Amino acid sequence: VSLSASISSPRDHLEAGRRALLLQRFGEVRAASERLCASLDPEDLVAQSMPDCSPLKWHLAHTTWFFEAMVLAPFAPPGEPYTPFHPRFGFLFNSYYNAIGERHQRPQRGVLTRPYAREVAAYRRAVDEAVQRLLEREALPRRDEALRIVELGLQHEQQHQELMLTDLKHLFSLNALEPAYRPPLEVSPNAPPSQGWIDFDAGVCEIGHAGAGFAFDNEMPRHRVFVEAFSLADRLVTNADYRAFVDDGGYRDPARWLDAGWAVVQREAWERPLYWRETPDGLAEFTLAGLRELTPAEPVCHLSYVEADAFARWAGARLPSEAEWECAAAGLAVEGNFVGTGWLHPAPAHSEAGRLAQMFGDVWEWTSSAYSPYPGYRPEVGALGEYNGKFMCDQLVLRGGSCASSQDHLRATYRNFFRSPDRWQFSGLRLARDR
Amino acid sequence: VSLSASISSPRDHLEAGRRALLLQRFGEVRAASERLCASLDPEDLVAQSMPDCSPLKWHLAHTTWFFEAMVLAPFAPPGEPYTPFHPRFGFLFNSYYNAIGERHQRPQRGVLTRPYAREVAAYRRAVDEAVQRLLEREALPRRDEALRIVELGLQHEQQHQELMLTDLKHLFSLNALEPAYRPPLEVSPNAPPSQGWIDFDAGVCEIGHAGAGFAFDNEMPRHRVFVEAFSLADRLVTNADYRAFVDDGGYRDPARWLDAGWAVVQREAWERPLYWRETPDGLAEFTLAGLRELTPAEPVCHLSYVEADAFARWAGARLPSEAEWECAAAGLAVEGNFVGTGWLHPAPAHSEAGRLAQMFGDVWEWTSSAYSPYPGYRPEVGALGEYNGKFMCDQLVLRGGSCASSQDHLRATYRNFFRSPDRWQFSGLRLARDR
Amino acid sequence: VSLSASISSPRDHLEAGRRALLLQRFGEVRAASERLCASLDPEDLVAQSMPDCSPLKWHLAHTTWFFEAMVLAPFAPPGEPYTPFHPRFGFLFNSYYNAIGERHQRPQRGVLTRPYAREVAAYRRAVDEAVQRLLEREALPRRDEALRIVELGLQHEQQHQELMLTDLKHLFSLNALEPAYRPPLEVSPNAPPSQGWIDFDAGVCEIGHAGAGFAFDNEMPRHRVFVEAFSLADRLVTNADYRAFVDDGGYRDPARWLDAGWAVVQREAWERPLYWRETPDGLAEFTLAGLRELTPAEPVCHLSYVEADAFARWAGARLPSEAEWECAAAGLAVEGNFVGTGWLHPAPAHSEAGRLAQMFGDVWEWTSSAYSPYPGYRPEVGALGEYNGKFMCDQLVLRGGSCASSQDHLRATYRNFFRSPDRWQFSGLRLARDR
Amino acid sequence: VSLSASISSPRDHLEAGRRALLLQRFGEVRAASERLCASLDPEDLVAQSMPDCSPLKWHLAHTTWFFEAMVLAPFAPPGEPYTPFHPRFGFLFNSYYNAIGERHQRPQRGVLTRPYAREVAAYRRAVDEAVQRLLEREALPRRDEALRIVELGLQHEQQHQELMLTDLKHLFSLNALEPAYRPPLEVSPNAPPSQGWIDFDAGVCEIGHAGAGFAFDNEMPRHRVFVEAFSLADRLVTNADYRAFVDDGGYRDPARWLDAGWAVVQREAWERPLYWRETPDGLAEFTLAGLRELTPAEPVCHLSYVEADAFARWAGARLPSEAEWECAAAGLAVEGNFVGTGWLHPAPAHSEAGRLAQMFGDVWEWTSSAYSPYPGYRPEVGALGEYNGKFMCDQLVLRGGSCASSQDHLRATYRNFFRSPDRWQFSGLRLARDR
Repeated sequence: VSLSASISSPRDHLEAGRRALLLQRFGEVRAASERLCASLDPEDLVAQSMPDCSPLKWHLAHTTWFFEAMVLAPFAPPGEPYTPFHPRFGFLFNSYYNAIGERHQRPQRGVLTRPYAREVAAYRRAVDEAVQRLLEREALPRRDEALRIVELGLQHEQQHQELMLTDLKHLFSLNALEPAYRPPLEVSPNAPPSQGWIDFDAGVCEIGHAGAGFAFDNEMPRHRVFVEAFSLADRLVTNADYRAFVDDGGYRDPARWLDAGWAVVQREAWERPLYWRETPDGLAEFTLAGLRELTPAEPVCHLSYVEADAFARWAGARLPSEAEWECAAAGLAVEGNFVGTGWLHPAPAHSEAGRLAQMFGDVWEWTSSAYSPYPGYRPEVGALGEYNGKFMCDQLVLRGGSCASSQDHLRATYRNFFRSPDRWQFSGLRLARDR
Repeated sequence: VSLSASISSPRDHLEAGRRALLLQRFGEVRAASERLCASLDPEDLVAQSMPDCSPLKWHLAHTTWFFEAMVLAPFAPPGEPYTPFHPRFGFLFNSYYNAIGERHQRPQRGVLTRPYAREVAAYRRAVDEAVQRLLEREALPRRDEALRIVELGLQHEQQHQELMLTDLKHLFSLNALEPAYRPPLEVSPNAPPSQGWIDFDAGVCEIGHAGAGFAFDNEMPRHRVFVEAFSLADRLVTNADYRAFVDDGGYRDPARWLDAGWAVVQREAWERPLYWRETPDGLAEFTLAGLRELTPAEPVCHLSYVEADAFARWAGARLPSEAEWECAAAGLAVEGNFVGTGWLHPAPAHSEAGRLAQMFGDVWEWTSSAYSPYPGYRPEVGALGEYNGKFMCDQLVLRGGSCASSQDHLRATYRNFFRSPDRWQFSGLRLARDR
Repeated sequence: VSLSASISSPRDHLEAGRRALLLQRFGEVRAASERLCASLDPEDLVAQSMPDCSPLKWHLAHTTWFFEAMVLAPFAPPGEPYTPFHPRFGFLFNSYYNAIGERHQRPQRGVLTRPYAREVAAYRRAVDEAVQRLLEREALPRRDEALRIVELGLQHEQQHQELMLTDLKHLFSLNALEPAYRPPLEVSPNAPPSQGWIDFDAGVCEIGHAGAGFAFDNEMPRHRVFVEAFSLADRLVTNADYRAFVDDGGYRDPARWLDAGWAVVQREAWERPLYWRETPDGLAEFTLAGLRELTPAEPVCHLSYVEADAFARWAGARLPSEAEWECAAAGLAVEGNFVGTGWLHPAPAHSEAGRLAQMFGDVWEWTSSAYSPYPGYRPEVGALGEYNGKFMCDQLVLRGGSCASSQDHLRATYRNFFRSPDRWQFSGLRLARDR
Repeated sequence: VSLSASISSPRDHLEAGRRALLLQRFGEVRAASERLCASLDPEDLVAQSMPDCSPLKWHLAHTTWFFEAMVLAPFAPPGEPYTPFHPRFGFLFNSYYNAIGERHQRPQRGVLTRPYAREVAAYRRAVDEAVQRLLEREALPRRDEALRIVELGLQHEQQHQELMLTDLKHLFSLNALEPAYRPPLEVSPNAPPSQGWIDFDAGVCEIGHAGAGFAFDNEMPRHRVFVEAFSLADRLVTNADYRAFVDDGGYRDPARWLDAGWAVVQREAWERPLYWRETPDGLAEFTLAGLRELTPAEPVCHLSYVEADAFARWAGARLPSEAEWECAAAGLAVEGNFVGTGWLHPAPAHSEAGRLAQMFGDVWEWTSSAYSPYPGYRPEVGALGEYNGKFMCDQLVLRGGSCASSQDHLRATYRNFFRSPDRWQFSGLRLARDR
């Protein structure tokens, strides 16, 4: 109401509409985080199963702190400095922003039984209201930039929503009670579809983000790359495919592995993918629906880079580079099995000859590309410059999103990244080969 | 009612009375564990702050499993085998009994968000009732032994009650919110009492437990030791005493320390006792009532063996041996500041010339004695043989109990034991010297 | 003599000439390894200063084993199987070839006091003679391939010659006696030359090896890349440049560093480059001539990737990619300060406006490129496939060679590679920037 | 000659005789260290096989530094301060004396290729001459104390002679060439003698050193202990005895082990004693004469405390306390298989009914006693106070000496000490039991 009163020009109308849409999206994304925890008791939100993971309660609080630190404090109107909800929450819920200050040790997030989940909920409500109040102010200096950072905060929260699911899955996988987060997943009776190849010619191709629409700084600038001729598999690698590798002694033969991979296989005594388990009834897989028989037609999942690489080598192929992947994905609709389906597990491909299936959703696809700055890369200014750029070392790029990603969070230019032994994400692979 | 019906002889009356007393004690001790958690939310019960500590929920469940594994299963009447409350709880809540089987990894107890606290409460109720039903049976084979093991289970639970408090304190100490478990502790205005010495002559002395009354296997058999003449301080070392050591550069001078102590001082960058903190307002101490100014007259607390030893050396004295301590304690009443006072913090001594103060309660007193078997030691048979004996290596004995111990759990012969760098217990010291 | 007797055609003459040249080179390269140790006592050849390094004696033996395993055994004439010099040397001196078998643990190479240096010398002589005998045989099946692998073995040995110098430098740097390997290095009195930029236009460029001449498998195939417009510094970064970064608090400000870099700075308490030392007389540098005052005009050296990256960011520039470097280096003569000068330390640039100085020699130049397979990469077959390919993970490429490299071992296409925290090589940097 | 000129009284004669004897012993002990290395090349003297061990060259230098630091410097005549042989040798060869200053890191002793062995030899000669000159001075203030410390230095050197042998054995054991330090050991054809028990009554016993003759501070003061009645095996446990334990699954059953022992068995994957090896020809043992078939009648050797304890428990017995051992040993001649026999390996017992065999020599005997100060213990003053006292924590006492000990270095009161998992010493056990 008060908002519309001040609108007096077409540009104002546009801007008000854009703001209203953002506020609606703000409400939806923030609610989605809480909905993810709705079926859990507060006790489930406390634990941290390994240093890479965080407690769900911490995710809920950190994404909230992000709006305090990146929006409410820096965009507070002159003379009205923002008072944080709690003086110590900045210390507790800052993840890795050195520019902002000291913080609680990451591997110790599981000791934070306080604040209680209900206190975190109150924190979220208070910050939500403050963000909404700020955005609704008639006169807000640097409003456009504020709106852009709010959108960044929502993209950030969607990243954490995916982590909440993968961290919870990891946590539950360590509990002999085998808790289930969602009801049983029916097993698909279908055999895996056969795999074909799609050919691409050599040439200069453009990758990276340009133009309107949100993108992270690491997706920019759009630039030219030369891609030699290659072929890409028309579907993801399946459990059936990967099982043949395991059954062929894949985890016992160093010749299959990168040196770094064989080292981790031996150190961690890996024998199969993270959530596969031998049971008296055969191979099973731990899922967000609990333990369940291994389904051949589903994409193989929870692989590290070194496992994906080893499989590809064994299969006489290789991983695609991120440039190859993005060139192939350009123009494809962002459709697939995302978090919105509620399935929360990769699903068999519905292939169609000559068409790339499963490019988005199901599982993140490891590429052979190290996570590096694009030529001309400029990080965000200030603390947000730590968002992406400082991690561009010793990590590999994954593309395409997973069954735990939000559909409206993904793009063909999106670059996810993890280290070569990481495998608690919904990560799998698609084969590539030279032509 | 049904119980009394079967009583027909004086011996039966005695036995029934003993059983009734035990059942009453059973109810009280079991209730006490739950009362310790009454002011906490379930979230507080999930976290494990370090591998040496356990989540409070785990303590509640483990002490319950102990009755299942040591009483309900082995003493089940013929033909009525005991069915565990849950088929996986044995795996989750077995602490270290190899004879009983595989178990959840100790450093990973914090991942057990399930079973929920309310499910653990139900587990406790079910086992409580089963124990009571078993003990009330008219004909129970090996009843005397069953009663003895029930008493052992209660002593075991009292040990865990103390650990619940020390583990919670450690957990809270790592949280920047500085949670308080109990209301503020008033500060004693008194200066520390002066310290005197009590002399003891050389001679053969008997130590260890004999006769009726409960004792752990590690307190037996009673046997003779020769003790050379020594003197014992008439009170515990205070914060004021220890602060003088710290201010004298105690933590910076290797000459004060055992080699193993100096190694941990350097490795862990120790500068003061575990819960002392430098604040803008001077030295403070983290307590179960939150952060509070350091009180000179109170016994120093949360010291490791190597710190206690270093202080004693600096003070021109030494730690007593456990034989010296026990010879001195023999005949003294088990009186002092225990968990029952609700204070949950060591309190200043009320000294009286020529009398040993604070021998029981306040803080466990480090002795110079390695935790070893007494001559003629016989561990319990079966799985219970793992209760004490297998830890008799690389640990030191502490005596006397603390402000977190139950009064009816302590004896002059009681041997507590921890490793030389451990300091999250309520552990301090009393000086001794040669005459 | 017997060799020339069998020559009867022009092709035979060519082949005999090529063989004679290789045998001559074989003698020279093999002798060079021994010459590196001539001024040392056998005791200096035993020690291993960290797992990444190897004892010099081990290098001498391993490079010899390489000829046994890759040439003498596989190319032994039919019916004349090769008998290894010692049945256990294969176990001791296999570095990382899983295809060949079990081996001595890498971090334990320093325990190999046996074989003695004189026994290793005998081993070298015996293998040298066997290789020469083999190559001189009139009829040798697969002679061309054998010659190629001999050349590979010599390139391999030249790599180890550089490692011998860097490993020895690391070893000596840990000894309070500050041993010197070579006589004192005079200090250059010159100020560092100013730094200019050379511009390069965007376009498709070819990189990688093709045609005749030796190259490792990782340099192939030659392929096209698109390089956006960039500028490259016309000289290496100097000690004076880098010191300004250190003096500006470079090692204390996380904003300068990649996250992985800041982690190692904190974990290892890095304050400056590996061999810089604060002395009462100012900054000094440990060199192969012992400790010596830090010389501003010399290229900074013994930097890790994360230090090179941090400096470049602080300087408002970045590291070049390997494609940029190779495009810029194409056509330049391989000239500079190599091991053959005997200087064994990077030297100041003799710059000339508009010309790239120091592209070869002095220090390896970190690039921003992860060590990855080129499109169409095919590893060597058999055990030699482990030479390069399996290390293409979590490593970064360096280009150009150093003052410890052999001139005839380098090429513009040569790819060296180390991990991001490694800094015991002669590694430095040249700045690049976007245009 | 010049010495005798100044002798003018019976007391002087006595003192001169004592001095002459000490100088003779000084020469003998010092020469013995060098003789141990006579059959080795300098290369063998460089390596350190694990942090607990030291290079032989380091032992040679450290024992020399000891005389500089403890005798030559503190007893230098007024006005003639001692100038160390080399200004950095104090840094390199100080083992653990904080009072004396900073030092080279212990785990890095293997990097000290310099000083060369011949330089260490020169160091030894120079210090030997300086000590001899000092002792021969007519007027030496505090001469008695100087003589006492020289004797301490010789005892210290004898301890290091034993370590030289055990460290060399450990080093050689890691080398696939299986080097032999001494010629082959013939195998005793005899079956192990049967084992009897010797009974001891309860009572007050005196242990510890008193009176004339050298003893370390940790053996004093002599004091009273009460020992309950016990029996002691009349010989050491043999390989045959221990093999029965291994064959009975001793290393696979946690019930046999202390908790600390089972932890190390699992962590280190222990399956048998340190130097036992499975070979195609059956069990063998690595000895200072190389690999050799396991000899049943020989004492089992290179056991840790936890292995000795586990065996004793399995055998229905226990380890003796050090008081029991010393009470039993009192009055026995120090005779047995010492380093002087040149055998360098434990030898079968020549038992005689009713008599304790092998109490001295062959193998150190683990006791159940923690290494603690005796009542009234006073450490040496000054830096020498760090010799023994600071290690009285988390170590266990061993008694009796080994086949690598010098006979004139041992006494019934001698206390050796190592940590519970240590097993590279010649350490075994003798059973005890309660009566």
